Amino acid sequence: MRMVDIIEKKRDGFALTKQEIHFFIEGYVKGDIPDYQASALAMAIVFRGMNDEEIACLTDEMMHSGDTIDLSSIKGVKVDKHSTGGVGDKTSLALGPLVAACGAKLAKMSGRGLGHTGGTLDKMESIPGMRINLTEEEFIAQVNRIGIAIIGQTGQIVPADKKLYALRDVTGTVESIPLIASSIMSKKLASGSDCILLDVKFGSGAFMKTLEKAKELASTMVRIGKALGRDTRAILTDMDEPLGLAVGNNLEVKEAIATLKGEGPRDFVELVTNAGAIMLEQAHIASSYEDGQARITAAIKDGSGLRKLKEFVSAQGGDASYIEHPEKFPVASKIIPVYSEKEGYVRRIDSLAIGVSSMRLGGGRATMDDVIDMSAGIILNKKVGDKVGKGELLATAYTNKDDYEDVIKDIHDAFELEQSEVVVHPIVHAYIH
Amino acid sequence: MRMVDIIEKKRDGFALTKQEIHFFIEGYVKGDIPDYQASALAMAIVFRGMNDEEIACLTDEMMHSGDTIDLSSIKGVKVDKHSTGGVGDKTSLALGPLVAACGAKLAKMSGRGLGHTGGTLDKMESIPGMRINLTEEEFIAQVNRIGIAIIGQTGQIVPADKKLYALRDVTGTVESIPLIASSIMSKKLASGSDCILLDVKFGSGAFMKTLEKAKELASTMVRIGKALGRDTRAILTDMDEPLGLAVGNNLEVKEAIATLKGEGPRDFVELVTNAGAIMLEQAHIASSYEDGQARITAAIKDGSGLRKLKEFVSAQGGDASYIEHPEKFPVASKIIPVYSEKEGYVRRIDSLAIGVSSMRLGGGRATMDDVIDMSAGIILNKKVGDKVGKGELLATAYTNKDDYEDVIKDIHDAFELEQSEVVVHPIVHAYIH
Repeated sequence: MRMVDIIEKKRDGFALTKQEIHFFIEGYVKGDIPDYQASALAMAIVFRGMNDEEIACLTDEMMHSGDTIDLSSIKGVKVDKHSTGGVGDKTSLALGPLVAACGAKLAKMSGRGLGHTGGTLDKMESIPGMRINLTEEEFIAQVNRIGIAIIGQTGQIVPADKKLYALRDVTGTVESIPLIASSIMSKKLASGSDCILLDVKFGSGAFMKTLEKAKELASTMVRIGKALGRDTRAILTDMDEPLGLAVGNNLEVKEAIATLKGEGPRDFVELVTNAGAIMLEQAHIASSYEDGQARITAAIKDGSGLRKLKEFVSAQGGDASYIEHPEKFPVASKIIPVYSEKEGYVRRIDSLAIGVSSMRLGGGRATMDDVIDMSAGIILNKKVGDKVGKGELLATAYTNKDDYEDVIKDIHDAFELEQSEVVVHPIVHAYIH
Repeated sequence: MRMVDIIEKKRDGFALTKQEIHFFIEGYVKGDIPDYQASALAMAIVFRGMNDEEIACLTDEMMHSGDTIDLSSIKGVKVDKHSTGGVGDKTSLALGPLVAACGAKLAKMSGRGLGHTGGTLDKMESIPGMRINLTEEEFIAQVNRIGIAIIGQTGQIVPADKKLYALRDVTGTVESIPLIASSIMSKKLASGSDCILLDVKFGSGAFMKTLEKAKELASTMVRIGKALGRDTRAILTDMDEPLGLAVGNNLEVKEAIATLKGEGPRDFVELVTNAGAIMLEQAHIASSYEDGQARITAAIKDGSGLRKLKEFVSAQGGDASYIEHPEKFPVASKIIPVYSEKEGYVRRIDSLAIGVSSMRLGGGRATMDDVIDMSAGIILNKKVGDKVGKGELLATAYTNKDDYEDVIKDIHDAFELEQSEVVVHPIVHAYIH
């Protein structure tokens, strides 16, 4: 078999066989197939696409290019959740404890933030003492004991994706549904859960700009997951504004705590309740979607979700007194109000601009070597649909930096106002299963 | 400027600017732009194409990526010819002396054979003593003195093409009109002639499989040449059979000599006469196409073409007595007749199969390191349109190898016969100028 023939076959619009996809992934990971052939194939895939069988096969080959996690020693149904990357997305920190409190098992590997998106691991580390590098044994034991553990990637998970993604990033081959879907799904499948819930964001600030594209990606991933034997479902949520009110690491942790106390912002509570209901159905705990919603709502009301968060934090070495007393979290030295220069109704809050602004205030990384200021970030004082008067507070910036004037202007400009009243849509636009 | 942005721009169907193409070619030759980005861009070009301005720009940048030959010290109009690669294509060896005999100046750089196609340099070297590595000064002086010189590439001609072609060859990005056209034209333009005649072959054995594709390539190259200030024209010739009767190095030289003696095969004489007529028009020697044809025909009849060939061979150190007495060329030790197993009219002779067979008899190279047997090759005893009886001689194989049985079968099978009479078309199908 020759790589050039495989490239030409895809270039000419034919489907690749299992053997050809295996030859490519194995050879590429080994270094037998050079980057310049991999990038040519990736570009041919951008133009020609792949059918379901090819995508499932590619996902399977990528998944098996490295270590896979065996969660079979965890009793019960293991559920996992993946978001395609939002701003203010602290979902795992509230949703995880809630589903665990309801009896599901969440054995989750998470990532760090880069650019305008935050990462669950960074947010966890804003709690003093919190460890994210458990051994596989500790990880499994903890999930068995308390129902939840969230750690960084262990071992060599999907090296094919690591290598291929870095290449795609510099060769204009990121934007391809088959390549995006297989990249996400190979990692999710390798982490070993029985059920996967995908939160696919759409909108100008998201990776998928339109609802149609997001639907295509979501349904492709759901089909891959099912073809490879996992209960896979997806919700489509919009990024017309950041999720909740808080953007920035300890600000988001405090919002997750507030949410578990029943004091969360509308959109975030809605997302957590919907996602949680589906995950409880997947785990065969809830008898229906409505039953699932009721159980999540109850776990907020009766405090069992909050107790589970404390248990989770303690189990991973974190200081749970911060959960009890969120006022212990350090607060940035500069708190800058952002006032509106005009009046109207908020139609949209540019998530990308807010994410980048939070990063520039110190709350995120431009490159993987940057150090995060856990107290930096933004609190939104207005959300989509809200009426704003001239001079009224739009948002509040938190930073320890001196040079923030440009950022304040960007935060202001991220709010798009219009004169007529704005209808607020539910955050979950579609459910694909 | 970032290469990834250039790739994405082309991927999304936009035209690249002069600056972007310059950035790519300069960076790629320098090694600043890696192969994996170049191959991704090449694949995007395969799908999106390039407009005339982009192609001319790419050609210009490639041409200036290395040395260009300055022929301005040669008096008169310098004409050049390029063939996209045929089997049995000994055109330069007859056409060159003929146009030079008529007063044109041919300062030609040629190549070696690889795979199923032969190369003019190899054919020249079958004449004892013949030098193909003149210095640029010797080269120019010879053309000034006798009107013709044919040498190997000197200096660093179009390093961008050398690097890019090697990459395209292994990344499925060869088949792209803009990339093929710029590759050919950059080299022709760098070699410095005022006028270029392109012989674009088509047919199953040719690089361009259909007349339409060949026309597209030819007219693209003609437009590039004109845009960059050279009188560029093209003829489209078919590869339904090898050119002439002889395939193999000294066999072809002998056929070129015979042609200059007025004893050439019909199709080859036709090609040489047509191409020569156009080149004499380009050189402002002939007043019309018909006048050009008359001059070429006269140069065959009066022996001035043959005298010019001897002069050319002597000038480059070759033993001209071989031209006088072609029987001096070594003859292969094994001469194997290939008889027809059935009867009919020859509809087609598979050029690719004949080219590969000649190579396997010792007359060509599978890799650039192979040594050529100058006496090996094939003489066709039947051509398209000829009637063949069962047991009649189709071709004659010449080799010094022992293991030729498979090749003989392939030569036999290269002849496609049919029962009804076959119409013979003129070899030149179209003239683009």
